[in-house]
Amino acid sequence: MPDDSSGQSIKSLVNGQDSSVISIFDRSVLYGDGCFETILIHQHKPVLAELHYQRLVESCKLFNIPLDCRVLDSEVEQLLSLNAASGILKIIVSRGSGGRGYGAAEISETSRILQFHETPPETNLQKEGANVVLCQHRLANSSVLAGHKNLNRLDQVLASAEIVDGFSEGLCLDQNGLLVEGCKSNLLMARGGELYTPGLQTAGVRGVMLQYLQAKFEQQGITILPVHWALEELLQCDEVFLCNSIMGVWPVIKLVENARVCTFPIGSFTQQAIRYHHELLAVSP
Amino acid sequence: MPDDSSGQSIKSLVNGQDSSVISIFDRSVLYGDGCFETILIHQHKPVLAELHYQRLVESCKLFNIPLDCRVLDSEVEQLLSLNAASGILKIIVSRGSGGRGYGAAEISETSRILQFHETPPETNLQKEGANVVLCQHRLANSSVLAGHKNLNRLDQVLASAEIVDGFSEGLCLDQNGLLVEGCKSNLLMARGGELYTPGLQTAGVRGVMLQYLQAKFEQQGITILPVHWALEELLQCDEVFLCNSIMGVWPVIKLVENARVCTFPIGSFTQQAIRYHHELLAVSP
Repeated sequence: MPDDSSGQSIKSLVNGQDSSVISIFDRSVLYGDGCFETILIHQHKPVLAELHYQRLVESCKLFNIPLDCRVLDSEVEQLLSLNAASGILKIIVSRGSGGRGYGAAEISETSRILQFHETPPETNLQKEGANVVLCQHRLANSSVLAGHKNLNRLDQVLASAEIVDGFSEGLCLDQNGLLVEGCKSNLLMARGGELYTPGLQTAGVRGVMLQYLQAKFEQQGITILPVHWALEELLQCDEVFLCNSIMGVWPVIKLVENARVCTFPIGSFTQQAIRYHHELLAVSP
Repeated sequence: MPDDSSGQSIKSLVNGQDSSVISIFDRSVLYGDGCFETILIHQHKPVLAELHYQRLVESCKLFNIPLDCRVLDSEVEQLLSLNAASGILKIIVSRGSGGRGYGAAEISETSRILQFHETPPETNLQKEGANVVLCQHRLANSSVLAGHKNLNRLDQVLASAEIVDGFSEGLCLDQNGLLVEGCKSNLLMARGGELYTPGLQTAGVRGVMLQYLQAKFEQQGITILPVHWALEELLQCDEVFLCNSIMGVWPVIKLVENARVCTFPIGSFTQQAIRYHHELLAVSP
């Protein structure tokens, strides 16, 4: 929750100014016309900052949204210096205000919205594993928007509504019934000594923690293979886990689809991924 | 542009208050978590108000966003009473502020954002017809989001960027290369005495002007047939036109796809649709 009246800690900046509001003519409000990053802050530093920035810059480039990274950098530094050592930094970049209709010819300035959130409460999910529900809501298919963490996230909101009590995440299929990812995480599956993740050419978000794990496993000679699998393929896996920048790695111990319940052990790939995640936080300067 | 400092005319209301800003924690900003309507105001009245409200209510119901229509009604009345007799009313309904992440359990109040815009400048497009470009950007496919005017409109923004000088609208295909609609309009096509429009089961917006025209043609014994056509089918049509709530009906006289140019006459179905649109404005109380 914003707390910009205390004068002690500033929880949000809008284009460098201490503010928690934005114009209702901003295109984030009107069209979800922009992208965002959600970054773990550990010991006052953004974790995996380079990968987050790289994705943000690539998305802005694709969407033709000008972004001055030096300005953004200094605003991030400003916000972090005013807040706790641990937390979550959310960066929203929108095309800005102006123009009538979808056309974007008359827009003056990109909007940079920075929010600082508290670290979510500790859980035992990394250690004990998560119960996951198969969402009935299916993600949209788009070969252009896929991979990008854009502001059009109604799919994730609708799917997340299916994560009822007793579950910590939902698993999403695309329009063709193929596995994509969790509502807020990427999906990894191991079978017969190989590690797999759904290809993200037509749906899903190219997660930063997934990219980190891919690089780490690769260093060990293990390539995470992209697959286009239906649910049945996952059900035959030896182990399944989820990852994202904030929660790290969650083993999936139970997957529920209607009346069908499938359980998984916490296997060696999962344990290795958890070690990589711990390593990341330990070495972060 | 908002002009809420003059004291003369209020251009926007946020939850009934004279305001042109919203919290950066509102879910319209974060996720495009809501829907909207763009309504022509003629002689101080919203045109086709019932169809607009019906679609808004249906979308809110699907997305599980509570909406008090009596409150919205009175806010619309308040805004219209303070502004010109003609213009454009934009209603944005967002799930509101609160909650961390996609889950929507802790949200207190739906956000109602009302904007009053000036009528766009008059054009000769209804009389003389429009040049239309085939957009390379393809719309996402989603059997849930299709039809609804939700706030996830990045597709339309990206497609609209292709409407360069000399063109008034872009024509959009879906992920499978099938015709959907214009960037801001619905598409109608006539061939061999029959009238067709793309089915909107997996992409596109169920336009209010399209619904009005469907009802009017139906009264005359003409059913507008839903089709799932590739571009080639359109190119063989006798006449093609576009419609939406603000611009009414635009004949398509030229369609450009890369180096290929296809021209169409302004035919009798198009002229009938234009008459229906004129009738609507003439009889509006």
